[in-house]
Amino acid sequence: MKRGGIMEVKLWEKPKNCTIIEGFPGFGLVGTIASEYLIEHLKTEQIGKILFNDMPAMVAIHENKVVEPLCVFYNQKYNIVILHAITAATHYEWEMASTIGKLASDLKASEIISLEGVGPGDEGESSRVFYYANNDKNAKLFQKANIEALKEGIIIGVTGAILLRVEKTPVSCLFAETHSNLPDSKAAAKIIEALDKYLGMELDYKPLLEQAEKFEQKLKTILQKSQEAQEISDKKKLSYFG
Amino acid sequence: MKRGGIMEVKLWEKPKNCTIIEGFPGFGLVGTIASEYLIEHLKTEQIGKILFNDMPAMVAIHENKVVEPLCVFYNQKYNIVILHAITAATHYEWEMASTIGKLASDLKASEIISLEGVGPGDEGESSRVFYYANNDKNAKLFQKANIEALKEGIIIGVTGAILLRVEKTPVSCLFAETHSNLPDSKAAAKIIEALDKYLGMELDYKPLLEQAEKFEQKLKTILQKSQEAQEISDKKKLSYFG
Amino acid sequence: MKRGGIMEVKLWEKPKNCTIIEGFPGFGLVGTIASEYLIEHLKTEQIGKILFNDMPAMVAIHENKVVEPLCVFYNQKYNIVILHAITAATHYEWEMASTIGKLASDLKASEIISLEGVGPGDEGESSRVFYYANNDKNAKLFQKANIEALKEGIIIGVTGAILLRVEKTPVSCLFAETHSNLPDSKAAAKIIEALDKYLGMELDYKPLLEQAEKFEQKLKTILQKSQEAQEISDKKKLSYFG
Amino acid sequence: MKRGGIMEVKLWEKPKNCTIIEGFPGFGLVGTIASEYLIEHLKTEQIGKILFNDMPAMVAIHENKVVEPLCVFYNQKYNIVILHAITAATHYEWEMASTIGKLASDLKASEIISLEGVGPGDEGESSRVFYYANNDKNAKLFQKANIEALKEGIIIGVTGAILLRVEKTPVSCLFAETHSNLPDSKAAAKIIEALDKYLGMELDYKPLLEQAEKFEQKLKTILQKSQEAQEISDKKKLSYFG
Amino acid sequence: MKRGGIMEVKLWEKPKNCTIIEGFPGFGLVGTIASEYLIEHLKTEQIGKILFNDMPAMVAIHENKVVEPLCVFYNQKYNIVILHAITAATHYEWEMASTIGKLASDLKASEIISLEGVGPGDEGESSRVFYYANNDKNAKLFQKANIEALKEGIIIGVTGAILLRVEKTPVSCLFAETHSNLPDSKAAAKIIEALDKYLGMELDYKPLLEQAEKFEQKLKTILQKSQEAQEISDKKKLSYFG
Repeated sequence: MKRGGIMEVKLWEKPKNCTIIEGFPGFGLVGTIASEYLIEHLKTEQIGKILFNDMPAMVAIHENKVVEPLCVFYNQKYNIVILHAITAATHYEWEMASTIGKLASDLKASEIISLEGVGPGDEGESSRVFYYANNDKNAKLFQKANIEALKEGIIIGVTGAILLRVEKTPVSCLFAETHSNLPDSKAAAKIIEALDKYLGMELDYKPLLEQAEKFEQKLKTILQKSQEAQEISDKKKLSYFG
Repeated sequence: MKRGGIMEVKLWEKPKNCTIIEGFPGFGLVGTIASEYLIEHLKTEQIGKILFNDMPAMVAIHENKVVEPLCVFYNQKYNIVILHAITAATHYEWEMASTIGKLASDLKASEIISLEGVGPGDEGESSRVFYYANNDKNAKLFQKANIEALKEGIIIGVTGAILLRVEKTPVSCLFAETHSNLPDSKAAAKIIEALDKYLGMELDYKPLLEQAEKFEQKLKTILQKSQEAQEISDKKKLSYFG
Repeated sequence: MKRGGIMEVKLWEKPKNCTIIEGFPGFGLVGTIASEYLIEHLKTEQIGKILFNDMPAMVAIHENKVVEPLCVFYNQKYNIVILHAITAATHYEWEMASTIGKLASDLKASEIISLEGVGPGDEGESSRVFYYANNDKNAKLFQKANIEALKEGIIIGVTGAILLRVEKTPVSCLFAETHSNLPDSKAAAKIIEALDKYLGMELDYKPLLEQAEKFEQKLKTILQKSQEAQEISDKKKLSYFG
Repeated sequence: MKRGGIMEVKLWEKPKNCTIIEGFPGFGLVGTIASEYLIEHLKTEQIGKILFNDMPAMVAIHENKVVEPLCVFYNQKYNIVILHAITAATHYEWEMASTIGKLASDLKASEIISLEGVGPGDEGESSRVFYYANNDKNAKLFQKANIEALKEGIIIGVTGAILLRVEKTPVSCLFAETHSNLPDSKAAAKIIEALDKYLGMELDYKPLLEQAEKFEQKLKTILQKSQEAQEISDKKKLSYFG
Repeated sequence: MKRGGIMEVKLWEKPKNCTIIEGFPGFGLVGTIASEYLIEHLKTEQIGKILFNDMPAMVAIHENKVVEPLCVFYNQKYNIVILHAITAATHYEWEMASTIGKLASDLKASEIISLEGVGPGDEGESSRVFYYANNDKNAKLFQKANIEALKEGIIIGVTGAILLRVEKTPVSCLFAETHSNLPDSKAAAKIIEALDKYLGMELDYKPLLEQAEKFEQKLKTILQKSQEAQEISDKKKLSYFG
């Protein structure tokens, strides 16, 4: 059901010439887990959020804090803006892509990097990471970091829409193969490793896998609880007035 | 089905600097039962209502009086505005949250307190009550009243939307664990007890459980009759012209 | 399916200070049968109609005359405007209530009387009639006419919406208990009897039951034929172009 | 699914004071077959078409010519404008009726005649033809032509909507009983016969039944091919990108 | 679900008096395969694209390049603009037809040629090619090129909508019979052969079938991967927050 929806970015700080990294929940929740890792591991502060009236009216409380569904964080050291999403923009991917494109223009961002999961190829169990870049200079940097190019693939969701719609800002993607649609912290860890190489952040990514697992666990808890809530809520609708 | 709906607050009195307490039907109808208890137990008068074209066209008559589905009451002694809802704002939670946020701004309300049910944790049968407050001063007051903080949880519905969208007015919540989706007067009574401690209203809450049960009964009657009405109405649609 | 629908009252006469009586098809089609009885039994003329683009495109021809689905009649002797509906305003009850409320304001009507069916109580087979009035003076007149007040009930449809939304004009309702969702001429006859007492019209309501049965029969014919038409039409849709 | 649809009449000739005859596909496709017969049998030329964005994007090619789904023809001798439709205006009947009503006003048409099928009565197999006219003068002309009045019936679709909504132009209908929802050329032939008597066109209707059968066959071919196309198209949707 | 969608042509070059060839995915994906062959075989460059918010947010990466879903190419030698689509405009065919018609007007195009598949006739296995042209001069050119006219057929989708809606620019179609709804490179090759004869391009179409098979294979890969992606995505929706 469509609600003539609001989609609006609220920023209380506007860092210029930044790199924007977005992590939306996709295959294996890779984008969400990886962007959460960055927020917690790098020194970041919240600088904004995205309002969006067409997502379900549901909020998670985690460790006695409200978890914003679409949140903008900032790391000053690397001049990185991180867009962390735990809510999918289902049916509104084009609008979300336009919103992110406009944000990038407003901040004169030098690059948008999408973190995303892709369905696996046929070769074994280990998650590989691939890049795609629509800018030659960036493509060479990925190659230099020994990251493989994505030859064939179908990208759905916000990342797919960004690839087709954002024109003014160079767009790069890191894709981690993921074998299931459960939260996949290993794939997310691989993406962080690749991102670190690419951006030269010299992240201490030794604790990465353990931490990613911790986030995975957190997300699983949130997901499970929201399913329970949804189920009770659905049943409830049968019984009360309205 | 969407109707380009009207949502409008009509107030014929505008008490300033009040505390707003909202009780929407959620898990266990806790918010509705608890807010009704306040309306009947405190000295209150109706000061307004919320018009909303996307709720079902259904009205309850109880003791020969029309029961307003979305009603605003006022208690002068504690300067409390009570928003009592027997109709859920399904699909319109964000709009309802914005409407309540705007109401709070207009009245320069010092706090919005949401009364809400949450799914139970694992420990036994007794309903516990938790708080959440996005304002440190209020959080301390809850702790002082010996109310436990909600560590983990998923909040859906109008309360969830208020938590994410209302920014100018401090928001607090009281959550009662509830084990079913039937009207739960015990959980509602626990919430009233906690609210009384928090606000220092010195409510005589001895008769509370019996009264809450009375309201529960009233709601059950209304719910049962509206289900019957709905059923007859659904069958009827098969047989008449239009 | 919503069509940005038109709802418009067309009146070619505007009697002032009238009483408006509305009969929409509800439980037992009581409102429709009763209002039709008034139209035929009192000396009435059509003074308008309600256009409404969201009803099905279907018209009944009865005795070689088009039966208007939403029609406004007038009886000069008692200064009564009768709104006779054979089409339900399903999903558009609030708009219809606003439309009727505006009509009442425009005509400076002294009262809106809704004729409606309600689900039965537990006591036996005979249809009882109840009143509800939001105006004390009118309530006393109903009591004087020995009509019982409705203590508990759920009112759905246009009548329910009128009860919540019309504020400038006093609203009264006459409810007849009805045991089925088939056209119920007995319940309609009881309502006419009560209305006659209330308004002091001194209607000759001896032939009432027979006449009501005649209307019931007419409605049954229309309903049956429209179901047949609908069924053929639904099948047809499988076979032609478009 | 609604598309904020365009409905627009394009006329490149505007004959004044004409009679408008409309044939929409209804029961037995009677209106479509009969209006097609008129177009082919009388000397006619296309003078316009109706654009309508909510019909399926499907076009028939017949004898190497595009068959317009909603087409306006003109016969000068009898000053007749024929609206020939092979596409139903499902869900948009009111808009179509308004569009036709406006067309009639613009052309100062003296009468709109709808050709339509109705469900059969109980008496035997032969198709009877009935009239309905909302103008007494026209009613008398139908009686004079020995055409029976329709006493009871439910008219659905564009013709039903025209009967309720067109007010400035007199509306007449010719209804042919039809026993199935397949194209019924016999019923269409009966309507042509009646129309000829009514308008005094002295049509040579001896070849009528054979010709009507030819049109029936053409329509059956179109319908069958469009069903095949639809079926392949529906399957196709499972397999391609988008 | 409708999104008040954007449909917009972006052109960074505007060749005048060109011939526009459009290939949308229809039966056998004939239009898509044939237009892709033209793009690769003729010397072409991308000169624009069509933005369209109501297509699924999904992008294919092929040979490390983003495959635009709705792309405009140009060949200078023959002054041909090729509109290549791998996404169907399901539910938006009329809008797409209007968009293409407007594009043709803006470029003062001399002709729009639609490449399309049609369901097969009854005669054997070999794919025949037919033309339709709404302009006599063009029809004669097709006959001169020994291409058969389409006598009977139902055209659905964008090509069907173009046939009914584009009025200022002459419209021609080449239809290849196709026996399945799988990508059909043979039918596409036949269309290219006919197009070459018609336009006198003297294309070296010896390698055509092999090349068309290569494109068919590419499309199959894209289709298969997007189905896999869609399936994983659909499952995923069951499990994450939002």
